[in-house]
Amino acid sequence: FRKNIPSAKELTEGILHGNKTALGRAITLVESTNISHLNRANEIIENCLSRTKNSIRIGITGVPGVGKSTFIESFGLQLTALGKKVAVLAVDPTSSISHGSILGDKTRMDELVKDPNAFIRPSPSGSSLGGVARKTRESIILCEASGYDVILIETVGVGQSETAVHGMVDFFLLLKLAGAGDELQGIKRGIMEMADAIVINKADGDNLKRTKIAKTEFTRALHLYPPKENGWIPKVLTCSALENKGIQKIWELVDTYLEENKIRGGFYLKRREQNKYWLLQTVEDQIKQRFYQNREVKVLLDSLLLEVMDSKISPFKAAEKLLALHQKELK
Amino acid sequence: FRKNIPSAKELTEGILHGNKTALGRAITLVESTNISHLNRANEIIENCLSRTKNSIRIGITGVPGVGKSTFIESFGLQLTALGKKVAVLAVDPTSSISHGSILGDKTRMDELVKDPNAFIRPSPSGSSLGGVARKTRESIILCEASGYDVILIETVGVGQSETAVHGMVDFFLLLKLAGAGDELQGIKRGIMEMADAIVINKADGDNLKRTKIAKTEFTRALHLYPPKENGWIPKVLTCSALENKGIQKIWELVDTYLEENKIRGGFYLKRREQNKYWLLQTVEDQIKQRFYQNREVKVLLDSLLLEVMDSKISPFKAAEKLLALHQKELK
Repeated sequence: FRKNIPSAKELTEGILHGNKTALGRAITLVESTNISHLNRANEIIENCLSRTKNSIRIGITGVPGVGKSTFIESFGLQLTALGKKVAVLAVDPTSSISHGSILGDKTRMDELVKDPNAFIRPSPSGSSLGGVARKTRESIILCEASGYDVILIETVGVGQSETAVHGMVDFFLLLKLAGAGDELQGIKRGIMEMADAIVINKADGDNLKRTKIAKTEFTRALHLYPPKENGWIPKVLTCSALENKGIQKIWELVDTYLEENKIRGGFYLKRREQNKYWLLQTVEDQIKQRFYQNREVKVLLDSLLLEVMDSKISPFKAAEKLLALHQKELK
Repeated sequence: FRKNIPSAKELTEGILHGNKTALGRAITLVESTNISHLNRANEIIENCLSRTKNSIRIGITGVPGVGKSTFIESFGLQLTALGKKVAVLAVDPTSSISHGSILGDKTRMDELVKDPNAFIRPSPSGSSLGGVARKTRESIILCEASGYDVILIETVGVGQSETAVHGMVDFFLLLKLAGAGDELQGIKRGIMEMADAIVINKADGDNLKRTKIAKTEFTRALHLYPPKENGWIPKVLTCSALENKGIQKIWELVDTYLEENKIRGGFYLKRREQNKYWLLQTVEDQIKQRFYQNREVKVLLDSLLLEVMDSKISPFKAAEKLLALHQKELK
């Protein structure tokens, strides 16, 4: 590598050879807002697209305090011990990967970071979830081309990022605590509905009994949902990431899921649907953005918003005026 | 009126004089897909916008079987007895107003239909919820200009129409039955969160005891939600629309709500925000529609969707290609 400006070709080769530095630099290009960086990033992604391995993408979510980073460390180390290469990405700015140090927690994936078969990348910064999600999704491609077998995508169980992560993974895992009282929260926001497995963490010490009760309750709650399209019935497991107990069972469950779904075809169908979703989502985001960023439109919008809010003009008439101006602007 | 082609001016005058035929015809223009009709409709709406009375808009939702039409009849008659003019509109094609006869129910607002101070309009037909919602929202303006004091907007508690109705009313009322077991459904889909009041209907006969229990349960469930922005704490009431019991209390509650909210300003703030929402929503719907309706874009989209689903091109690269073509097409 030349120190600062490795070409797209050089980075692609580095990625394909499993070079972590090249992978990290390429992801930096993906995350950049500099247009020349983005062009290079696109070239790398196109090069990598046909070279991706058969990886598994697992989404992991849970509210702060549930022990996400300890879990990911424990789960990741188990996978590398099985000879798998593991990449960890994050989707939101408040994820434990990016903000671990701020929380003052010293045990954040200390071991996993040092593992030669693990690659950990903090959440990209970005103003919109759409932007961050896009960057994460492209980073998945690069990690897969670089030979990572399992991609763990972390998100915090607050906000809308779960839906984005659910839209880019094969398996969605919801971490919970016994008796945390956020059951309703999970139902309300549809997160429980998205889960392929619920894992109750911190099943250790005094917590063991409560964990067992919670397991029964969550299992019952899951039965209230209609079965998933692919026929999978979500399972509830317990584990102690701290004491490294129950972690193996979780991987076995994921493995069973993948096996069943690959045979039945649901696995590939889901990936195809996800690709379609991202195409349409990106298009719609962009055309909206183009509209709102047009300077003339902006000026008219500001004045019409006031008129509309004061009921001086109907919202629909105002929309018509804006669209007419936009059409003129485009010509 | 000339028989078939009353002008916008004539219809506006009819509306402002409280003529039901003129109001009905104007709404037909609003609902039409004929462009010349729409132009006339727009003219009428603009004329009416500054002439609307201080009406109250109440959204009423509940799953089929909850007794919506009986409730609306009972509630509406109580309002006309108080000297108020009441208009009833519906937002979805499966509402009880439009499909009453299909369901074979003979008691659908029989009395209210005959009341000179009531105006009942079935749901407009339309392929998209957005379109139907827009038409309903414009019909509200016309009803208000025609002197209606209370506008009841009915929607069926299935699908996304609740969000649309919630976005056009001052007060949102959720009808429930005791022990119907759809509590989770309501929480899950966020309908309970939108409610300003939950009314448990069919509090009569054998059902009385169960209704009391349900009241306690729903009250408890509502406490799990954070308080509303305007400070209102949603209430749970019971009624028997069939026996005409408890209906007066519901109107008193709405009245209290309005009084409190008008003093605190939340009422006007909400209306302003709703107008803003409809402007932005309409703009975004339209620009998306324009994109997808472009013939060249359509052809490219179809082929790119296949490539994207087979991972031959990244969704983001495909989006770029589509957007570039669209931009070229617009010029």
